[in-house]
Amino acid sequence: MAQLDDVLQALDDGREAALERLFQLLRIKSVSTDPAYAAGCLEAAQWLVNLLGELDFTASVRPTAGHPMVVAHAKCGRRGVPHVLFYGHYDVQPPDPLALWERPPFEPSLTDGPNPTIRARGAADDKGQLMTFIEACRAFHERGGYPCDISILLEGEEETGSPSLPAFLEANKAELDADIMLVCDTGMWNPTSPAITTSLRGLVYEEVTIHAADRDLHSGMFGGAAINPVRVLARIIADLHDAQGRVTLPGFYDGVHELPETIAAQWRELGFDGAAYLANVGLSVPAGEQGRSVLEMIWSRPTAEVNGIYGGYTGQGSKTVLPAEASAKISFRLVGTQDPDAVREAFQAFVKARLPADCRASFNSFSNAPALQLPFTSEALTRARRALAAEWGKEPVLIAMGGSIPIVGAFKRDLNMDALMIGFGLPDDRIHSPNEKYNLSSFQRGARSWARVLAELSN
Amino acid sequence: MAQLDDVLQALDDGREAALERLFQLLRIKSVSTDPAYAAGCLEAAQWLVNLLGELDFTASVRPTAGHPMVVAHAKCGRRGVPHVLFYGHYDVQPPDPLALWERPPFEPSLTDGPNPTIRARGAADDKGQLMTFIEACRAFHERGGYPCDISILLEGEEETGSPSLPAFLEANKAELDADIMLVCDTGMWNPTSPAITTSLRGLVYEEVTIHAADRDLHSGMFGGAAINPVRVLARIIADLHDAQGRVTLPGFYDGVHELPETIAAQWRELGFDGAAYLANVGLSVPAGEQGRSVLEMIWSRPTAEVNGIYGGYTGQGSKTVLPAEASAKISFRLVGTQDPDAVREAFQAFVKARLPADCRASFNSFSNAPALQLPFTSEALTRARRALAAEWGKEPVLIAMGGSIPIVGAFKRDLNMDALMIGFGLPDDRIHSPNEKYNLSSFQRGARSWARVLAELSN
Repeated sequence: MAQLDDVLQALDDGREAALERLFQLLRIKSVSTDPAYAAGCLEAAQWLVNLLGELDFTASVRPTAGHPMVVAHAKCGRRGVPHVLFYGHYDVQPPDPLALWERPPFEPSLTDGPNPTIRARGAADDKGQLMTFIEACRAFHERGGYPCDISILLEGEEETGSPSLPAFLEANKAELDADIMLVCDTGMWNPTSPAITTSLRGLVYEEVTIHAADRDLHSGMFGGAAINPVRVLARIIADLHDAQGRVTLPGFYDGVHELPETIAAQWRELGFDGAAYLANVGLSVPAGEQGRSVLEMIWSRPTAEVNGIYGGYTGQGSKTVLPAEASAKISFRLVGTQDPDAVREAFQAFVKARLPADCRASFNSFSNAPALQLPFTSEALTRARRALAAEWGKEPVLIAMGGSIPIVGAFKRDLNMDALMIGFGLPDDRIHSPNEKYNLSSFQRGARSWARVLAELSN
Repeated sequence: MAQLDDVLQALDDGREAALERLFQLLRIKSVSTDPAYAAGCLEAAQWLVNLLGELDFTASVRPTAGHPMVVAHAKCGRRGVPHVLFYGHYDVQPPDPLALWERPPFEPSLTDGPNPTIRARGAADDKGQLMTFIEACRAFHERGGYPCDISILLEGEEETGSPSLPAFLEANKAELDADIMLVCDTGMWNPTSPAITTSLRGLVYEEVTIHAADRDLHSGMFGGAAINPVRVLARIIADLHDAQGRVTLPGFYDGVHELPETIAAQWRELGFDGAAYLANVGLSVPAGEQGRSVLEMIWSRPTAEVNGIYGGYTGQGSKTVLPAEASAKISFRLVGTQDPDAVREAFQAFVKARLPADCRASFNSFSNAPALQLPFTSEALTRARRALAAEWGKEPVLIAMGGSIPIVGAFKRDLNMDALMIGFGLPDDRIHSPNEKYNLSSFQRGARSWARVLAELSN
């Protein structure tokens, strides 16, 4: 097995070649959402299989109903070490609008200056990030071998909602099972502070429709006598929060835990400016639970939000209609061990309890994902923290994401695998936008970070 | 001046000729909403001017920005008698869908059987109705002269919302001023029970938009921290009614009066089946103020209704957006002497009182019409009731309409003229639908009714 110092030296010595490999991948137009680029997706998958083959991975392009997966496995030949599964995605967002790019999006380049950046579509999301892990693998391979068993899953549909992933996971459970998942699709806290994303909020998304009369009515002829479903729906929505900003569904806070004090203290020390965060979108008053910081509101507390509402006449001008039905799309962000089924059932019961005799409710369920919380006491987390601290000279921040990453939830649900989400993206990377970039330091120190993480996990 | 008995005899003797005149008018394709029929509208106006000229009215076609008005005046030569202004409209709804007509819509015919009906587009709405008044005039003219001064205003845009009427009224105030307005565009209670419509609800119609963040937000990144305008709007709507179904705007019930007991008793005796009225649209529980009948809810009580609501994502499926704004169209039906300006101001204040610091509200005002209530003690009403009772052998029902008739409101507002709304339509006349009809008895006894009303008003 390679020694860590040798591996790190190999990474430092091989920087130019590593950058050239990344540029090769960035030149491939693997836009997943546009069928015109289907050949580019296949080309990227094949390129990655070839690359991993050079590193003695057993790698293959695996067809799906959509763009293919890349699956690769490498054994270290040792016992008592973990088996890790790395996840990344080779597909990218469309480059439009092209006119806003300073250089063509699929012609990668390095900017000059003291903090060089790699410019190209996918530089950060996610080609640059996934190559940090593969470069770490290469360095181990060059200097004596892998420290643990490594599997790699690279997807080609992440930017289109991963439609083929659930079926692929289901069909390949045994092959993809591992001790822990490593994901490189998240960010650092700032350019010099590494971060591990330990919490992702879950999501229960329900569409509710309140049905009243069997047709739209004239508000002159029926107004006052016929029940108005918008009024019923408004009451339901208004009742969802109390005056302190807490969600009122019975049992909603079951499974919502207070942060460990060490984590809470770390978050307080981050210097996150909640006021500036809201001011940036024209707001000034945190709208969530009283007594909670903005960071808690978006990272560690559950929510109920109306994402859309519609009923009756919504065009220009006026129409004196009394609508037959009204609908709202309502979603709940979940944390801790909140049970999505219980939340959905509590919501439906909450609605039904507020239905007048003449109304009925129908529901569409669009999402039902639990929160993901890597236990703060997890051994893997402790080792990863140590690895990142050694590389960056400071403790990594344990951050949360307000949104969801479906792949992580799927592995947790189907294979009960926890995920270490370690990424080197930065808020100014302009992912999904013109002139996407990835800091050269993110790429180079990201690879060193993964080398250290793999070594720590295998000690 | 003609004697009433002579006039009624003239109407009975002239029935065939009267029907032929109505058929002539029904043959003219005066569809106001379709520019292809513009010539038909002008033709109808000119035909009516010619007809009124035969009756020694000073009549003219009066151009507007849209279809012309017909204005006609006849003096009786006596002092101390009222000056009445009759209003009707010569335009009709489009006949579509043509395939559903049993006979062509502009080829009027009389059905056979014990209760013959006149079949044609406009038979009831409003050509048949307006001709009941003109036939009464003709009979007076033939038998000795008019009992009072009579002006007639016939509009050609009623079916398209009377766009030219306000400016025409404003420009011709002095000419159109009279002691009372007579309107024949309403209905009877049933085929043997005449009715006078004495109440029309007013309408305040406001569109409110709640503005929060300066852009739509991602509910993962901002959910819980940023105020959701749908939640604010839902609270406002939910607060608009109390648990007893009363509207909670401060001062809202100022000017809402209890019905005189005699009218309340008459309504109770009508045998109106509120349960059947609601069952017909799939409902069973009256939604208005507790302790009020369905008839009161739609005829004599004010309401607050949401006519439309929209915000955020309203398409298929799910989107985790936290909307920047949310809007509702909210209308208030007014009764008695409720002040529309006061209601609008109370609503806007009600909204503003419920705005969190980060939200603002904007408003669009679409309607601001007071209720119209012919005083139950009005002398003209007393005389009209007597006239109708004499013709039909039973007291007319004093009914209300839940909706508005803009023309009546405009005359009340601009010229302070009350209106006697007497019509002979029936619920099964299929106005606006294929196979529109008007009972021959409505046409003939309607003309006799107007003769009696004119005589009573002039006594």
